[in-house]
Amino acid sequence: MAKKNAFYAQSGGVTAVINASACGVIETARQHKKHIGKVYAGNNGIIGALREELIDTSKESAQSIAALKHTPAGAFGSCRYKLKSLDENRAEYERLIEVFKAHNIGYFFYNGGGDSADTCLKISQLSATMGYPIQAIHIPKTVDNDLPFTDNSPGFGSVAKYVAISTKEASLDVKSMCETSTKVFILEVMGRHAGWIAAAGGLAAEKDGDAPHIILFPEIAFNKDKFLKRVNSTVKKHGYCVIVASEGAQYEDGSFLADAGNTDAFGHKQLGGVAPTLATMVKDELGYKYHWALADYLQRSARHIASATDVEQAYAVGKAAVEMAIEGKNAVMPAIIRGKGKKYSWTIQEAPLDQIANVEKMMPRNYISKDGLGISEAGRRYLEPLIQGENYPPYGKNGLPEYVQLKKVLAEKKIEKKFVV
Amino acid sequence: MAKKNAFYAQSGGVTAVINASACGVIETARQHKKHIGKVYAGNNGIIGALREELIDTSKESAQSIAALKHTPAGAFGSCRYKLKSLDENRAEYERLIEVFKAHNIGYFFYNGGGDSADTCLKISQLSATMGYPIQAIHIPKTVDNDLPFTDNSPGFGSVAKYVAISTKEASLDVKSMCETSTKVFILEVMGRHAGWIAAAGGLAAEKDGDAPHIILFPEIAFNKDKFLKRVNSTVKKHGYCVIVASEGAQYEDGSFLADAGNTDAFGHKQLGGVAPTLATMVKDELGYKYHWALADYLQRSARHIASATDVEQAYAVGKAAVEMAIEGKNAVMPAIIRGKGKKYSWTIQEAPLDQIANVEKMMPRNYISKDGLGISEAGRRYLEPLIQGENYPPYGKNGLPEYVQLKKVLAEKKIEKKFVV
Repeated sequence: MAKKNAFYAQSGGVTAVINASACGVIETARQHKKHIGKVYAGNNGIIGALREELIDTSKESAQSIAALKHTPAGAFGSCRYKLKSLDENRAEYERLIEVFKAHNIGYFFYNGGGDSADTCLKISQLSATMGYPIQAIHIPKTVDNDLPFTDNSPGFGSVAKYVAISTKEASLDVKSMCETSTKVFILEVMGRHAGWIAAAGGLAAEKDGDAPHIILFPEIAFNKDKFLKRVNSTVKKHGYCVIVASEGAQYEDGSFLADAGNTDAFGHKQLGGVAPTLATMVKDELGYKYHWALADYLQRSARHIASATDVEQAYAVGKAAVEMAIEGKNAVMPAIIRGKGKKYSWTIQEAPLDQIANVEKMMPRNYISKDGLGISEAGRRYLEPLIQGENYPPYGKNGLPEYVQLKKVLAEKKIEKKFVV
Repeated sequence: MAKKNAFYAQSGGVTAVINASACGVIETARQHKKHIGKVYAGNNGIIGALREELIDTSKESAQSIAALKHTPAGAFGSCRYKLKSLDENRAEYERLIEVFKAHNIGYFFYNGGGDSADTCLKISQLSATMGYPIQAIHIPKTVDNDLPFTDNSPGFGSVAKYVAISTKEASLDVKSMCETSTKVFILEVMGRHAGWIAAAGGLAAEKDGDAPHIILFPEIAFNKDKFLKRVNSTVKKHGYCVIVASEGAQYEDGSFLADAGNTDAFGHKQLGGVAPTLATMVKDELGYKYHWALADYLQRSARHIASATDVEQAYAVGKAAVEMAIEGKNAVMPAIIRGKGKKYSWTIQEAPLDQIANVEKMMPRNYISKDGLGISEAGRRYLEPLIQGENYPPYGKNGLPEYVQLKKVLAEKKIEKKFVV
């Protein structure tokens, strides 16, 4: 078999460690030059392939590639662009195969969440149908931690660590001033349909009575009366009340507490505003002084406080993806499998993509406390190992982390026809 | 002179390093047992003195006191409680002196901002008038960095580092996805009347074109047309636009962009909501997809990424306060004085409280760029040294920082009469 090149693309919302996966892919491919030629990266994700904008990663120094491991966000650019079904837009798939063929690309590494697992599977299937079979490997990434099969998704552990630490720090702040100032603090976190990130806030509580006192999950229908009663009794008992609320918190009927009314390219609603909604309830009904924070992108880009476990796993799935490709695997995803022992351990195993694409893993109900307003011991046991260890980026003399900016040299185009995305 | 005890209290909004100042006070006092007896700390600040709730810090181990240096928020509790003027409430001052007298307290260390500098000065003056002279030393602390005389205020450097890093990280996130997703990102930061914290966001830009592209200061009247034009031209040029907005951003007539309508105990308006206000403008007028974050308490409690310079200075002013007390000083504040050399250096000097109380230091206009939407080179030269160095807290096996919780044993009450605050 003639040596093929590889294509790597970042998809969907970026994370603090997605570049660590890119680092794993590129460093491992460089170690296997007998099997894999160049690694091209899509400029801004899959649309880089459609536009034939292929970043030639061989132009980047070993040092720059190594620095990806401590650089947040998408170093090659990512996108929210969902390929239509073959019926709806056959031209897109044909274009991809045409570009891959023109650049002798035989390996497709797609680094994303559930939507991109689906795309990855389709590329694998359709490329075979179209007579240019490509080995498509999906590399898991999502702060939402909602991919099935894998014990957790790279990107989540670092958000979890950020949210747990931020909850702890802000809670100490509120606690120390509640006698005369703010009594209720609300931190709104990401997690559209699954409460994994909100649950991570629960790790901040190390002993009974510690904040957060209430967690609002998308999985548990919001009950205003129950919520306000709990806020009130917590303030009466502890002097203050800290709430971690998922952006996806919703009423019994599935309507979101805060719905900004916008939708993204995948048709998902753009959320944001649960915290001020809750704050208004607290003020109107209980009259307590409140503050709220909305971490938004800060939480998923916070490489400065990434989980060392997460960084290692993100690198490992990138490395494993290349190794699977070399072994001839196709339509698979390297999944993180948790060891059975009491001490946390993990290994990488391959998972079939057709069992992953478009399946959303929710929080098991038993990870949530019986009253629905906190995490259970089982939840804590699951979450705690994922935030273990610190992996600090290097800092410059100016007091800022030294994040790498790549040169991003594009490979020469080989196809005359342009493709408008 | 008979050996006197000391009283230490934390006042107003807490910070990531106010406990480092407490550590400096207590450790230094412990080294001078010949001069200073016990250090009592006010439970929840000055109201602890009014209620005769004095925390006996001698009951805390050396290890716990040392751990204050890496623990955020107010370990003894702080409060927003402004003493009225002597005319309005003489009973409060008489009560304080009574409590200090009953516990043989001759040193008053008050750790706060402008309001508490004023209280500190009054205590010094009135205690003399009332026949029980107390040496009152103010220890500077405010994330707002608006204290005069001192080059900067402990607490600010760590918020500045947090804001600079968060701006940088979130900007990388937005930049990597702007082709198909969010084009405008707004980070709202603290700073009621002075734009110091917003200015710190400017440090994230290391070269031309880097985010943040716009900074909104309270000092510069907000001009909607100019703002939207700049947002639009930035998106056209760079593909995305990042804005750091002070909560105190205001129109020409002094009205705040976002005014939640509440006031705190000092009569200050409770702000919050500039970011969503700006986001709505951007969406309505330009139609760009936006995201926004409101860091709120997260920024001032973020000990996990404190500036090493800030931690050192916070400790140093606490230490210097005790040394000044021992030297017989009164109604002074240890101020941080910047060296003249090119390389950043600093020393501690005493500053007279009557020149500090109730004076607010604004950003010099020349620290702001000519167009009013960014920082100048002079601003950068001032700010950059303050965020230098990292001073990480120790972490436990559970992946969380090990912040100390003190025992807070109260001294036995000596006054029968209760005082209701």
